[in-house]
Amino acid sequence: MDKIKQQIKDDFPILNQQIHDEPLVYLDSAATSQKPRAVIDGITQYYQTINANTHRSVYTLGQQATDQYEAARVKVAKFINAKLAEEIVFTKGTTDSLNLVAQSFGQSNIQAGDEIVITYMEHHSNLIPWQQLAIQKQAVLKYIKLTEDGQLDMADAEVKITDKTKIVAVAHASNVLGVTNDVKKLGQLAHEHNAVIVVDGAQSVPHFPVDVQDLDADFYAFSGHKMLGPMGIGVLYGKEQLLRAMPPYQYGGEMINFVEEYQSSWADIPLKFEAGTQNVVGAIVLGQAIDYLQSIGMDEIASYEHELVAYALPKLLAIDGLTIYGPKDPNLHNGVISFNIAGLHPHDVATAFDMDGVSVRAGHHCAQPLMKYLGVVATVRASFYLYNTKEDIDKLVQAIIDTKEFFKV
Amino acid sequence: MDKIKQQIKDDFPILNQQIHDEPLVYLDSAATSQKPRAVIDGITQYYQTINANTHRSVYTLGQQATDQYEAARVKVAKFINAKLAEEIVFTKGTTDSLNLVAQSFGQSNIQAGDEIVITYMEHHSNLIPWQQLAIQKQAVLKYIKLTEDGQLDMADAEVKITDKTKIVAVAHASNVLGVTNDVKKLGQLAHEHNAVIVVDGAQSVPHFPVDVQDLDADFYAFSGHKMLGPMGIGVLYGKEQLLRAMPPYQYGGEMINFVEEYQSSWADIPLKFEAGTQNVVGAIVLGQAIDYLQSIGMDEIASYEHELVAYALPKLLAIDGLTIYGPKDPNLHNGVISFNIAGLHPHDVATAFDMDGVSVRAGHHCAQPLMKYLGVVATVRASFYLYNTKEDIDKLVQAIIDTKEFFKV
Repeated sequence: MDKIKQQIKDDFPILNQQIHDEPLVYLDSAATSQKPRAVIDGITQYYQTINANTHRSVYTLGQQATDQYEAARVKVAKFINAKLAEEIVFTKGTTDSLNLVAQSFGQSNIQAGDEIVITYMEHHSNLIPWQQLAIQKQAVLKYIKLTEDGQLDMADAEVKITDKTKIVAVAHASNVLGVTNDVKKLGQLAHEHNAVIVVDGAQSVPHFPVDVQDLDADFYAFSGHKMLGPMGIGVLYGKEQLLRAMPPYQYGGEMINFVEEYQSSWADIPLKFEAGTQNVVGAIVLGQAIDYLQSIGMDEIASYEHELVAYALPKLLAIDGLTIYGPKDPNLHNGVISFNIAGLHPHDVATAFDMDGVSVRAGHHCAQPLMKYLGVVATVRASFYLYNTKEDIDKLVQAIIDTKEFFKV
Repeated sequence: MDKIKQQIKDDFPILNQQIHDEPLVYLDSAATSQKPRAVIDGITQYYQTINANTHRSVYTLGQQATDQYEAARVKVAKFINAKLAEEIVFTKGTTDSLNLVAQSFGQSNIQAGDEIVITYMEHHSNLIPWQQLAIQKQAVLKYIKLTEDGQLDMADAEVKITDKTKIVAVAHASNVLGVTNDVKKLGQLAHEHNAVIVVDGAQSVPHFPVDVQDLDADFYAFSGHKMLGPMGIGVLYGKEQLLRAMPPYQYGGEMINFVEEYQSSWADIPLKFEAGTQNVVGAIVLGQAIDYLQSIGMDEIASYEHELVAYALPKLLAIDGLTIYGPKDPNLHNGVISFNIAGLHPHDVATAFDMDGVSVRAGHHCAQPLMKYLGVVATVRASFYLYNTKEDIDKLVQAIIDTKEFFKV
């Protein structure tokens, strides 16, 4: 991996630019990833050659668009080892996928007094849908605590998940703490109590191999734009029997079987959940992003990112006045590193970094309950991906030193 | 317009190809439009230079992406003459927009016994959301009839819209019949009875100037991909006061003000309705599609399409055994022409046309109740846009003649 890393970086045209006369160091992949040339060209190629609306088209372009769209579904299914392509629903993104589950499955299966279990590290997209569902249904929302170093407290999980639990919703990897959760174990706990597990995979699928059958996940949601794919496309995996039993989430074209004046019947999965014209090019080019990821190998990517973290963490921990949230052990920490510099507001830090060309995010990272739990208002977050290098980390460290000097803290 | 029409066609790379050794004649713009080079290049430009996640970003790329995203909102607002940019919500498409209104506004405002009025010419996306809402709320769904030649029966509209009516939902232009409805008059009727009007603008905004203030529309929905823009982006316009009073549709990042463990408060409009990472490039490049449309002029486009229809209709009406659905008068007919050839199934017709390079759609056009109303199972549909020419219509006519000869009907 090491020898091809510059080649990988060269595949991403956006990275070859200067910000404030400094080379861009993009460390915000947890928010959105950059796109390789193959993906950008794939979009152009689609619009220049086969662009058409899918399904029910008998002409050549319409058939080609439909074939490629459905081939992308098969590719996504294989990528996460779903048993069936029909278990893959294309959505707008992770948030759309999770809202679909909360509205369709949740509305049908949650009743007053039922319990929904989430964690203190959830992104708002895997928190508010359950919070509001609980309010609406007079169900009980429970939070699994974290350990001192920001890992999920599995002992607390065993306490919180009970026979009253109907849904366990959890991030596979945190977008703040750099921890990867044992969703397989959580799924076992859920299933022991006849609950389903809903996994937010936005920060996992782009970074390491995910096997939904091995995890025995009931629902698994992720976004294209965080895994080198285009914006506006996401995925909801759901077990066949669950998806079949669920009512539609949106109504419109393509998701129907028969429509009469006062009643309708629905298409089979997955089209039942794909009302209206889909982001056809988004799905097809997400497939091309998967091709790119697989050409390198998800194990390789995971191991390379681990290498970056193992390089970065000791350097960051050695900086005076810098607090890292989440585990300090690189073996427990993935490529998302949140921190604060004593005496500085995260927004000032990120603004100062930008003057060195270093792009990081500052804020609550759509995880306000976690911020409150950690006792902070916001953090700075640097997040790595396959196109980052050790030189990027050196520049991050230098930016921290420069910023501390500038603000005299 | 006439002298620049070849130049326009040249702006669309996909049109310069052969299908079955014949030049492509794309007549399915009512399903999705083709994209000019400026739009395709806009996507590449975005991903190669400023791709980042929007809002709460303080670094350069994030700010640029946010600025361009919000500038696109302003551009869309001006394009349809909305009073405020905040009245523009970016969605996945028309279907997503209409489901948002049905779920958020509809769920909050419809009660048992209330009436929802739609028409027999609605696309499923502006039909099933209301049908299902009515079922769920024990409300009454009413259909405005059509006249003999497929126009909306305005006399029946005056009967159907009553003091019990809470919502009138209607297409501005039909995706089957080629008629444009008097939504301004329907809005007046709705408002006289204190109902709101929801307009499906998927087939109107791409083709003629739309002024939501002049129409006094309460909600107006349309899609980017049907107006030269990318797939996966759409718009919901809503009057400020209505949007402000509505609950969120989806929950997640960016749509919040404060999130606590057991309750949350929401962002102001329009972000309240934009949960999760949006299709940022989709919105920005939709703005570029609007630039392209405006560089020609929406009046020019409407008048050119009328010219095509006035050229096409008499030729089609002269063909023995061909039935046209909708008005026969070109002054009452826009660029969507649905027809059948006696003795032939529409799918066979579209398949035969494809051998001549002519791409048309065949089916129920996501309007099954309309098909039943018209007494047909399906139709062939040819739909025009600014890149079509009279030569395309000549080829359509020739394809019909060839097909009749081939099938000996």
